Amino acid sequence: MHEAADQTELLRKRRSNCPVSCTLDLLGDRWTLLIVRDLLAGKTRYSEFLSSEEKIPTNLLAERLKRLEQEGLVERVPYSQRPPRAEYHLTEEGRRLGGVLDAMATWGMAHFPGSRRLRLPGS
Amino acid sequence: MHEAADQTELLRKRRSNCPVSCTLDLLGDRWTLLIVRDLLAGKTRYSEFLSSEEKIPTNLLAERLKRLEQEGLVERVPYSQRPPRAEYHLTEEGRRLGGVLDAMATWGMAHFPGSRRLRLPGS
Repeated sequence: MHEAADQTELLRKRRSNCPVSCTLDLLGDRWTLLIVRDLLAGKTRYSEFLSSEEKIPTNLLAERLKRLEQEGLVERVPYSQRPPRAEYHLTEEGRRLGGVLDAMATWGMAHFPGSRRLRLPGS
Repeated sequence: MHEAADQTELLRKRRSNCPVSCTLDLLGDRWTLLIVRDLLAGKTRYSEFLSSEEKIPTNLLAERLKRLEQEGLVERVPYSQRPPRAEYHLTEEGRRLGGVLDAMATWGMAHFPGSRRLRLPGS
């Protein structure tokens, strides 16, 4: 794991040592896994994340990307200094969240009539 | 699907038809999947959910159980009239969330040092 992630790890107050609870402490909201979905689908830039149908607010996108970077799930790669711009890529550990997304997509397709999988994680 | 769930379905405003997004509209918070975890582990009563290490607040527990019931994922079975008391059980559709929990537990065990799986969904 990332150094920054180790530090965050030590500082964070876990609710319990249950791995589901720990995962939800980090990803248990309506947006973070949608960003991971978009990263798995090959999106890398702010404008691309903002263009997704769910219309994530810019401030939430910035905060979530920063948290994912601190946790070692996303790598930030600057590509312009003026103006400051960066691309975002999943690390190997981040890519492994594909299993969670896949399980959610499978369940969601069965539960929500008319929902359809636009991107197959890992495909 | 449940009649009440059909109604909720029609009334709910989806962010998109992505099944991951739809699933997060319903379950994207820090608590709901912990209740599902406890239900999979065989807990059925308020006092049992409240005793879990994460210490869910009573009002959140009540609200989440109601939502899960409306979605057809949980069945409420009264067992006492005075005082009014009920047990909660997962429906078959609710039990299928075991796949999502399992994927989260697998990822969480790898990402959070010292986390340990206390209950294997479906085992």
